[in-house]
Amino acid sequence: MERHFETELQAIKERLLTMGALAESMIHKSVRALVDRDERLVQAVLAHEEEMDLLCIEIDDRCFTQLALRQPMASDLRFLVASVKINSELERIGDQTVSIALRVQSLIREPELKPLIDIPRMTVLAQEMVRKALDAFVRRDVELARSVIEADDEVDGLRDQVFRELLVFMMGDTATIPRALALMLISRNLERIADHATNIAEDVIYIVRGEDVRERGDKELRKGLRTPTVQPE
Amino acid sequence: MERHFETELQAIKERLLTMGALAESMIHKSVRALVDRDERLVQAVLAHEEEMDLLCIEIDDRCFTQLALRQPMASDLRFLVASVKINSELERIGDQTVSIALRVQSLIREPELKPLIDIPRMTVLAQEMVRKALDAFVRRDVELARSVIEADDEVDGLRDQVFRELLVFMMGDTATIPRALALMLISRNLERIADHATNIAEDVIYIVRGEDVRERGDKELRKGLRTPTVQPE
Repeated sequence: MERHFETELQAIKERLLTMGALAESMIHKSVRALVDRDERLVQAVLAHEEEMDLLCIEIDDRCFTQLALRQPMASDLRFLVASVKINSELERIGDQTVSIALRVQSLIREPELKPLIDIPRMTVLAQEMVRKALDAFVRRDVELARSVIEADDEVDGLRDQVFRELLVFMMGDTATIPRALALMLISRNLERIADHATNIAEDVIYIVRGEDVRERGDKELRKGLRTPTVQPE
Repeated sequence: MERHFETELQAIKERLLTMGALAESMIHKSVRALVDRDERLVQAVLAHEEEMDLLCIEIDDRCFTQLALRQPMASDLRFLVASVKINSELERIGDQTVSIALRVQSLIREPELKPLIDIPRMTVLAQEMVRKALDAFVRRDVELARSVIEADDEVDGLRDQVFRELLVFMMGDTATIPRALALMLISRNLERIADHATNIAEDVIYIVRGEDVRERGDKELRKGLRTPTVQPE
């Protein structure tokens, strides 16, 4: 019985890794479609959505079955609840890539606005964050999870840079506005993907440390860092 | 013992309602700050963020304590796991209102671009969706939860309208671009709030119906509705 439970937890972990690999591939393909102007990659991302949904349903089922049947205590309980949350973060990463793919589908029918530099860099970072967050989950590695949370600032910085640069295009030539706007929104999608990876990393810290003060401390610190521009009244 | 468990589940429900009311108030104030050009309302939203975070931590603690101590079965288990998820949706709604408030803070330092019509309408809808989703949760009302999911399309429609209208301003006068862009991003924030309310409504259906086919059917249907513009290969 106990043995079967361990096997089932292991299976949940593996399915989450499969979902993570799929999410990474969707991120890669959605932006590759833009860079290569390749409609087939758009279609590939859209086709993956169904696969992602099925995995999400399967993992939810497995987690709830174990929660209900085994009534697990402490660390297994935290693992299962965190798995439910990580599962839904990964599904939302998939949704963001679908949103990117749909924007790319329109964009590649129009002339190229500019060579892309920062968006591909954001993409590599976001993919890395997803991979590292899941590695941290498997290895129960708090330091690795922390590095994901820190990388989020870099993605936000790139997003700001993309916005500033595209704003210059918009101001200089109104004909560029729809395309520049689409690229801005793609950079927002990538930023959201990085946010979801950050959420996964926070769940990992939660699983490993349980409900301790340091974790909450980090979260507060992060919030503090996130809003340095807020003016006091 | 059983009695105390019921009391505790009731307390979790009430704290989630308190959090929902706070989220609604933050949505209202963040856009009111824009319409009235009132910096004090910006500050009020920023001040609420801390309160929101504390509630989120408290509710998580309560849920995990009950999950660990009581090892609840079936419907109570679904209630507790859904509460953890609803809790995190509400926190993210709070995050979106903070993002709106920060954009408003910059916007109200510049001349007004245009009288606002659709953004306040989106705001009323988003607030209603949050309220109804939590009402549906308390009353275990699947029909009400479904109405929230349906309202999401209306919010998306308004968001498209806001984008189209602001695009005209941008194309007509490049000096309007930064302000028009900020308003577009605020409409995106409101759209995300509506998405979170929709996620809550889906959790409610899950709690009430358990893992049945109809719920998954709805989800597929909704996904189908969301991507009608996808071209077949």
